Amino acid sequence: MLDTIFSHRTIRKYKDKLIEPQLLEKILKAGTRASTTGNMQVYSIIVTTDEELKSQLSPAHFNQAMVKDAPVVLTFCADFNRFNKWCLQRNAQPGYDNFISFITAAIDALIVAQNVCLAAEANGLGICYLGTVIYNADKIIEILKIPKGVVPVATVTLGYPDESPELTDRLPLEAVVHKETYKDYTAEDIDKYYAEKESMPLYKGFIAENNKQTLAQVFTDVRYSQKNNEHFSNVLLKVLKEQGFL
Amino acid sequence: MLDTIFSHRTIRKYKDKLIEPQLLEKILKAGTRASTTGNMQVYSIIVTTDEELKSQLSPAHFNQAMVKDAPVVLTFCADFNRFNKWCLQRNAQPGYDNFISFITAAIDALIVAQNVCLAAEANGLGICYLGTVIYNADKIIEILKIPKGVVPVATVTLGYPDESPELTDRLPLEAVVHKETYKDYTAEDIDKYYAEKESMPLYKGFIAENNKQTLAQVFTDVRYSQKNNEHFSNVLLKVLKEQGFL
Repeated sequence: MLDTIFSHRTIRKYKDKLIEPQLLEKILKAGTRASTTGNMQVYSIIVTTDEELKSQLSPAHFNQAMVKDAPVVLTFCADFNRFNKWCLQRNAQPGYDNFISFITAAIDALIVAQNVCLAAEANGLGICYLGTVIYNADKIIEILKIPKGVVPVATVTLGYPDESPELTDRLPLEAVVHKETYKDYTAEDIDKYYAEKESMPLYKGFIAENNKQTLAQVFTDVRYSQKNNEHFSNVLLKVLKEQGFL
Repeated sequence: MLDTIFSHRTIRKYKDKLIEPQLLEKILKAGTRASTTGNMQVYSIIVTTDEELKSQLSPAHFNQAMVKDAPVVLTFCADFNRFNKWCLQRNAQPGYDNFISFITAAIDALIVAQNVCLAAEANGLGICYLGTVIYNADKIIEILKIPKGVVPVATVTLGYPDESPELTDRLPLEAVVHKETYKDYTAEDIDKYYAEKESMPLYKGFIAENNKQTLAQVFTDVRYSQKNNEHFSNVLLKVLKEQGFL
């Protein structure tokens, strides 16, 4: 288990090899063993392998090549639709058309997603999380025919790895762990915790490529800009409203 | 890995035995190996072991005994505070005071949380997720001195198990998995998928104890009622506003 976790790399290149159906079933079943709120299992997993559907999904994921290249695309959804239908068929009035219910279901879906990813990696598969699913949830809802009460919150591409990248860097453990209560960061803490990252040639390259002065500017001005964040916030809030959670 | 996932039980009773510091460190480090958006690591983990602090946290978790009984309480937070501070110190203007940034950071934190839980279980520890953290995020923020830019999204109690409960039931795999696109449920599907759960003596007991007619009513009228969901939705939206994400 620890070996699998500590050797995790994001895999973006996949062999032209299908995933055996029994293996895929075992991996998905591993997902369902995760804890969920009140054991309600308010999530769904959409397994997309069809080439035409993957091509349609591709632009919603900003044409990242993994979506078309991976044999399997998994879309994990916060899902109160099934639970609501069950309630209505059992003379019970569901009260899950609100924000806390979306967050509850999203938490369920994400814990399930990580179980699936680790089970996949333990079986020799490679995975890549695509954050784009929450930026373009509206488009993904349309393509995957997702009904009211359901919102996609994680997309994972899955396949046999055709690359073996280096382990990526992490902040020192003490940068993300707080003892007893949250200890806010001093300017010196920040300098210390980001020093190693800032010294890496990989990131110095990012700065040069983007004509920026600091690595932080690559994030704020290029990769995750305020303008884009505000646009995608509005899209996602509209999706939550349309799907019945706000 | 698969053994750990398939033998997961929620553990609510813990031995009076501390967790070795090196073991805890290894488990937390396993958390940091998880994928995060743009490798930004916009999460924090608060490790609470102090008896007085656990007593203060207890009511915010509706006095569930695990909070006081477990040697360790982990609070996983969506955290843009550290990243924002780094940006400001590096002549970069952070644009993360919006909803999509909260969701991005919450996703990071939850994937990390599940890595930590599986690493803990692989090392003989037991865990329990407490959904209460999102209901009473305002109180937890106060007790754990959590600053603006940070919102707790998962609490996990951790310790050596002092019980060995049965595996809990799950819906059949086909109930939560959709092939290619989302296939909405017919009334017959719902009856079929919930039949096994509804036949279980455990749940028949729930119905009787609560004087209800159906299991669904136990959820809608008692455990997760519309009134409570609306109240907690308002609390959480207020928290997101106060913490700078709305």
